[in-house]
Amino acid sequence: MKNEKISMKDIAEMSGVSIATVSRVINQNGRFSSETEQRVMSIIEKYDFRPNELARGLRANKAQAVGVIVPDITNEFFACVVREIEIELLKKGYMAIVCDTNEAMDLEKKYIAMLKSLQVGGIIYIAGDTNVKCIENIPTVYVDREPMMIEDMMASTFIGSDNYQGGYIATRRLIDAGKKEIVLVLHKKSLTTQKRRLDGYKQAIRDAGMKFNENLIIKVENVDMDHGYEVTKKIFESELNPDGIFYSADILAIGGMRYLNKMKIAIPEQVSIIGFDDIPLSSQITPALTTVKQSYTEFGHLASESIVKMMNGDADYRKYILSVQLVERETV
Amino acid sequence: MKNEKISMKDIAEMSGVSIATVSRVINQNGRFSSETEQRVMSIIEKYDFRPNELARGLRANKAQAVGVIVPDITNEFFACVVREIEIELLKKGYMAIVCDTNEAMDLEKKYIAMLKSLQVGGIIYIAGDTNVKCIENIPTVYVDREPMMIEDMMASTFIGSDNYQGGYIATRRLIDAGKKEIVLVLHKKSLTTQKRRLDGYKQAIRDAGMKFNENLIIKVENVDMDHGYEVTKKIFESELNPDGIFYSADILAIGGMRYLNKMKIAIPEQVSIIGFDDIPLSSQITPALTTVKQSYTEFGHLASESIVKMMNGDADYRKYILSVQLVERETV
Repeated sequence: MKNEKISMKDIAEMSGVSIATVSRVINQNGRFSSETEQRVMSIIEKYDFRPNELARGLRANKAQAVGVIVPDITNEFFACVVREIEIELLKKGYMAIVCDTNEAMDLEKKYIAMLKSLQVGGIIYIAGDTNVKCIENIPTVYVDREPMMIEDMMASTFIGSDNYQGGYIATRRLIDAGKKEIVLVLHKKSLTTQKRRLDGYKQAIRDAGMKFNENLIIKVENVDMDHGYEVTKKIFESELNPDGIFYSADILAIGGMRYLNKMKIAIPEQVSIIGFDDIPLSSQITPALTTVKQSYTEFGHLASESIVKMMNGDADYRKYILSVQLVERETV
Repeated sequence: MKNEKISMKDIAEMSGVSIATVSRVINQNGRFSSETEQRVMSIIEKYDFRPNELARGLRANKAQAVGVIVPDITNEFFACVVREIEIELLKKGYMAIVCDTNEAMDLEKKYIAMLKSLQVGGIIYIAGDTNVKCIENIPTVYVDREPMMIEDMMASTFIGSDNYQGGYIATRRLIDAGKKEIVLVLHKKSLTTQKRRLDGYKQAIRDAGMKFNENLIIKVENVDMDHGYEVTKKIFESELNPDGIFYSADILAIGGMRYLNKMKIAIPEQVSIIGFDDIPLSSQITPALTTVKQSYTEFGHLASESIVKMMNGDADYRKYILSVQLVERETV
């Protein structure tokens, strides 16, 4: 028996609770026992009850969803950023739905279309590339990777690290440790993050009166441990003979250290290593990795705060450039 | 100027392309240049065009979304399972939206309600606990963690590893290496995965004619590297003096190895270590971790195949229990 004309009052009577309780169950607000919930929901389902209240609840649920686009969920750095975003959104009464694009631009486009059709309230967007257009008609906060097209950025918020500073302090630290041939391993993609780290590297080299050598800049196809291992192997099998390597991601450095360990190349005596990100793993390995810390806690906090403001109509259009810091451990 | 009565034909004329091309752009099917797409989309947006075709496209998009509930995205094992699910779903024309519950049961409930209200076509559910009711009114595939309530399972599919076998072969390997005091570190939660690994451990101990000692079963509050470190510290500061430790997750083992390294306890000479999962990291660390491999590739493949079947009305209700295997490396 289906009856779309059934009322909240009917539901309340049939489940033996008050109308207010039925409303609380429908909106998942306030207090009710799981027994009550079960009783109310079974009647709602039995009669396929879809009152305005429920419709409103559904709409409210939709508005409460925030899409999070992330380029690589298996990279612990991004997993940690996502976790922080989730926690902060939950505190504000919103929920994150995560789309992992595996660094593929065509997938980003599809996920964005899907998130729009699901009518999420906003999108937190960690792009897989720089050559990206801003998303239209939906509040968007860009994190970590800044879109190149600044003219589109006027109505957007960007949150990222001071990658120039990061490149500078890491390189400077290796120079201060007496290193002369410092390799920089970067992501192949033309990301602003990579470009700024390279600029910082160059400046530190110049400030020390050393000569910038293009051959010491090595690019990797993908950012994972296997590519860190392979690129390090390639470096040491080439004519290069570095005494310091600055990897643009901790997971690259960790892969590289596996190669050095295997070849019995002493860290830091023969080769000093610095990573970037400060993922939890970096303090767990032996020797513990010296690295440039990006605050994913702050990323998550600011991104959530900003997207919620935008969803509530309070424009908060600005760039947040967060300071990074060198975390000294055992590899320099 | 807005005009909801604008037709596909008008769009085609204004963008100087055929109606078929407009349709291809709207449905993101077939071939068209990005230039054409931009031109068509800008007109669609300008006139806020929402024809039946577009509405159908949106509905289709909704049906194509599959919710994936995962207990801990920062655990590389789950991140890898999710990645495999995504890849396999994409091959079949579906997209994954991921909800990370941080092992909190109340959050799972909220995420499920949200996924339903977003009208995803199905849910792949890696539960954070065992005492979980099955999800009603939506195709669901359970992965890794089997719901206790079997009566609800009649219309569901479950995919998991043979955890009993995993517990057995790991323990047996330590016994074969001559180890006498073998600690088993388990997740505190009453997950079926943990229970079955314990059963396998017990059986291997019994088969070797050894005596089962309850004190050697140690439980941790959370599964991450810090808890692995702390529990190992606690073990060695207690009256226990194990010569083998079997951790119920690689990330626990990796945290534990950091403590052993710090205390200059030789692996495997003084203490042998075996993990569970075979996350990519386990082959990267030094010494490389001997572990029980669960095939997240197969998890992803089966889960995607099964949920798509269910969404298309082909019931595929069964349990898949996948074999595990010991991966020999350097810690035993």
